[in-house]
Amino acid sequence: MSPEALKHVYAAVDLLGTFVFAVSGAMQGVKHRLDLFGVLVLSFLAGNFGGILRDLTIGATPPPAVDDWRYLAVSVLAGTVVFYRFCAVDPLRGPLQLFDAAGLALFSVAGTTKAMLYGLAPVGAVLLGMLSGIGGGIARDALMSEVPFVFRSEIYAVAALAGSTFIVVGHGLGWPGPPTAAAGGLLCFGLRCIAIRRGWSLPLAGQA
Amino acid sequence: MSPEALKHVYAAVDLLGTFVFAVSGAMQGVKHRLDLFGVLVLSFLAGNFGGILRDLTIGATPPPAVDDWRYLAVSVLAGTVVFYRFCAVDPLRGPLQLFDAAGLALFSVAGTTKAMLYGLAPVGAVLLGMLSGIGGGIARDALMSEVPFVFRSEIYAVAALAGSTFIVVGHGLGWPGPPTAAAGGLLCFGLRCIAIRRGWSLPLAGQA
Amino acid sequence: MSPEALKHVYAAVDLLGTFVFAVSGAMQGVKHRLDLFGVLVLSFLAGNFGGILRDLTIGATPPPAVDDWRYLAVSVLAGTVVFYRFCAVDPLRGPLQLFDAAGLALFSVAGTTKAMLYGLAPVGAVLLGMLSGIGGGIARDALMSEVPFVFRSEIYAVAALAGSTFIVVGHGLGWPGPPTAAAGGLLCFGLRCIAIRRGWSLPLAGQA
Repeated sequence: MSPEALKHVYAAVDLLGTFVFAVSGAMQGVKHRLDLFGVLVLSFLAGNFGGILRDLTIGATPPPAVDDWRYLAVSVLAGTVVFYRFCAVDPLRGPLQLFDAAGLALFSVAGTTKAMLYGLAPVGAVLLGMLSGIGGGIARDALMSEVPFVFRSEIYAVAALAGSTFIVVGHGLGWPGPPTAAAGGLLCFGLRCIAIRRGWSLPLAGQA
Repeated sequence: MSPEALKHVYAAVDLLGTFVFAVSGAMQGVKHRLDLFGVLVLSFLAGNFGGILRDLTIGATPPPAVDDWRYLAVSVLAGTVVFYRFCAVDPLRGPLQLFDAAGLALFSVAGTTKAMLYGLAPVGAVLLGMLSGIGGGIARDALMSEVPFVFRSEIYAVAALAGSTFIVVGHGLGWPGPPTAAAGGLLCFGLRCIAIRRGWSLPLAGQA
Repeated sequence: MSPEALKHVYAAVDLLGTFVFAVSGAMQGVKHRLDLFGVLVLSFLAGNFGGILRDLTIGATPPPAVDDWRYLAVSVLAGTVVFYRFCAVDPLRGPLQLFDAAGLALFSVAGTTKAMLYGLAPVGAVLLGMLSGIGGGIARDALMSEVPFVFRSEIYAVAALAGSTFIVVGHGLGWPGPPTAAAGGLLCFGLRCIAIRRGWSLPLAGQA
């Protein structure tokens, strides 16, 4: 693939991840009976907070999530559809967990790749990849005064961590970038899906 | 007006907005029975978080809210007055909603203008204007474990959005800056006041 | 001391502060019955959020807390020990308050010093020193949907403020850096300890 084509692929996965997380934000907002605009604000924050945090941390200002209209458009689209079609969306909650896992994978890949591009050390790139993946969900839940889902759920952040680590290790070993990124994303997605299906979880304190 | 005079006007509206939001933060803190210093910290965050977020996003570090002593002084003044004179302030809650609407308008104008100055695209400038306006209230409420007011209230963020959009569109059409900014601020203020008076609100999910 | 030796001392106090706050984050996570990874994420945020906030504000990107693997290692170590040895740690809660006071002092000193190094005005350096000290605890408690401890406790942020102010004033008077920083840290630590012992607190609204 040419660099130009790669750039388009990168933007596409980033926007797709934004859409999926914006949907989860909108569903959270509807659950808390927010009005239309509250739902849209929460959609935007869920879809973009992780990326904004990543960009501020690596010094990439202004973040595309703020400066590129497509991120706003995708978030508003997701929020509007969920708000007006929530009856239709609610039964999809099962499938949506899969979408959410896909979003986690997409953002972890994009975050890790961007952090390496900005010259972060390996551990920093792994951390930022994970934070990109979980940041939006943390903002979404904290603003609704809930303990963020990521702190309670089965193998969520661990899946993001596995994907990010895979990509950084592969980069260090000189593997070609795009297939390594794809494999890292699939690793994250697969781990999360299997954890959902089998109800895997980490030990709680006291059970340890 | 000379550029120098404009700069002073800009600083004045920014500080006035900080004062008004710091008052709202202090009242929230007193309501939750914080001690004096807790009230002052919450005043500072309510008055300055929106601006700090804006400045980090556009890469204007260090933010004036941290580096310019007047922002701290204004916040501490607001917090101290509310703390020691809460009996006197409480009956003013109605008028304070008007002050709050003025603060929302002032910050939206200042945020939009500063974002355009730093070269953000139109959609980015609108977004940042709105975030500057609503950011302080989000921090204030989230830290007290409440769902932020902006997510529940009638036409709050929408008013900020309308003012910001007006300014950006006017800028694109080549209108002169200061009157356009003033008109955008008045639009935001007016919308918010009318919404309070008439109890306007956006549809909730399920009623749509 | 040579500049090289000073740099090592600075890194050591920063990492020690990170460890102490990470312990407090892990204990908060165990209290809320998070799983192992949730505890580790909360440890990391409690130990590093204050420093990340400080670094973003002064434009020092990427923050060492993200880019230097030792901050992650120290946080994970603290979280793991607390998670698997909570029975052993719980009776230490009294001594831990002293550790926490030490962390507050260490971070306030490090934050103030770094802010002055980056050219912030005196008031800005004091503010950032205080924010470095209290930021991690705010993130820790807000994510667990609690009103942050700093807003409720006896003379917590005030102690940080006193230490930061002492350092900035001493710097202005031309006092030598390292002893002034040490004295500022001891002032913060001492105030906090005395406040805990004697149950000192600031007036609440209504009692004023």
